[in-house]
Amino acid sequence: MKLTRSDIDGLNKRYRAHLINSLSGFKSATLIGTRSKDGCDNLGVFNSIVHIGANPPLLGFIMRPHTVERHTLENILNTGYFTFNHITAGIYKQAHWSSAKFDRAVSEFEAVGLSTAFSDVHDAPYVEESSVKIGLRFKQQIPISLNQTSLIIGEVIEIDIPEIALSDDGYLNLDQAGTLAIGALDGYYKSTKIARLAYARTEELPKEIDGN
Amino acid sequence: MKLTRSDIDGLNKRYRAHLINSLSGFKSATLIGTRSKDGCDNLGVFNSIVHIGANPPLLGFIMRPHTVERHTLENILNTGYFTFNHITAGIYKQAHWSSAKFDRAVSEFEAVGLSTAFSDVHDAPYVEESSVKIGLRFKQQIPISLNQTSLIIGEVIEIDIPEIALSDDGYLNLDQAGTLAIGALDGYYKSTKIARLAYARTEELPKEIDGN
Repeated sequence: MKLTRSDIDGLNKRYRAHLINSLSGFKSATLIGTRSKDGCDNLGVFNSIVHIGANPPLLGFIMRPHTVERHTLENILNTGYFTFNHITAGIYKQAHWSSAKFDRAVSEFEAVGLSTAFSDVHDAPYVEESSVKIGLRFKQQIPISLNQTSLIIGEVIEIDIPEIALSDDGYLNLDQAGTLAIGALDGYYKSTKIARLAYARTEELPKEIDGN
Repeated sequence: MKLTRSDIDGLNKRYRAHLINSLSGFKSATLIGTRSKDGCDNLGVFNSIVHIGANPPLLGFIMRPHTVERHTLENILNTGYFTFNHITAGIYKQAHWSSAKFDRAVSEFEAVGLSTAFSDVHDAPYVEESSVKIGLRFKQQIPISLNQTSLIIGEVIEIDIPEIALSDDGYLNLDQAGTLAIGALDGYYKSTKIARLAYARTEELPKEIDGN
């Protein structure tokens, strides 16, 4: 089924949002935890997490211009810290609920029934129930003038991962870690590993890598 | 298992690359198709596709500074067009193979055994075997000075999707479309839908949406 740009421009707003959000394929199912300068813990679900680089370790996400998520951005800019927490099958409904427009003074952790966890390194809250927890220090907000969104980048300052899902070479099997994927805006998916493939060389089809 | 930043900085390069690339969760498994100004068709596998916005329809990806992928960027800048093609279980080994350092004059399509497909709208090649094909016009390259990568953004100008996977509200079930997910650098995953969840409201836990 083919659609041209003028077909797309003629779609109603919600239909277009579902469709275009589907096109980028599977996305990270992540809760971002922050703390306001008043000490209120904030939680929001994000699906636009992107790997920026491994050395230094940098992760980013796209921030929309006018949404409830602005609490997240305000807190990051005010405190300098935030957390990424992978969404698992046990908490995906609570995670999705955190995207509702809760009042600024309400902790989404309490509102949706998730627990905070903290470290000695920074004050941003982790989601205790998440199997993969990542602490980040804010580095840069890069404006995207095309649509008034921005790319928010942080450097990884600590991680907490399930050792059982970790391979000898640093690869984390997200299936074993219980991490879900998101499709479009509201589809939650369980993923099963087909294979890892060896570093590609021109001479031959890549072989499968044994292990996790 | 907790790692601090100094633990991370002490890891060897490949281990750190696998680990940090795992942290962003599931990622889009996408082949980017381009054509050089000399008419050579280029194909590369990318896992950093990110949704930028639905209106106008904008998608982006992170371009690394020094890799074989530079052919992709050169072609995009020279011709102004590129394609995203979802990777399915039937072609993931060929897709991964396209990341090998083939010579500039070699078409990765021919080298790995995938077929080109074209439309009337632009000259960039699609992957015939992909179930979801997206044509894009280059809009902007945004440099990320932190690590010399950049965010490449294009606007969607046409799409070709499997109608059977499309819901009444524009949601595309990526499971039914056969789209795979990538974990870290080389892990390919098949995903199964758990549920779609309704738009979140503060009053109650989001309900499941019936349908695709």
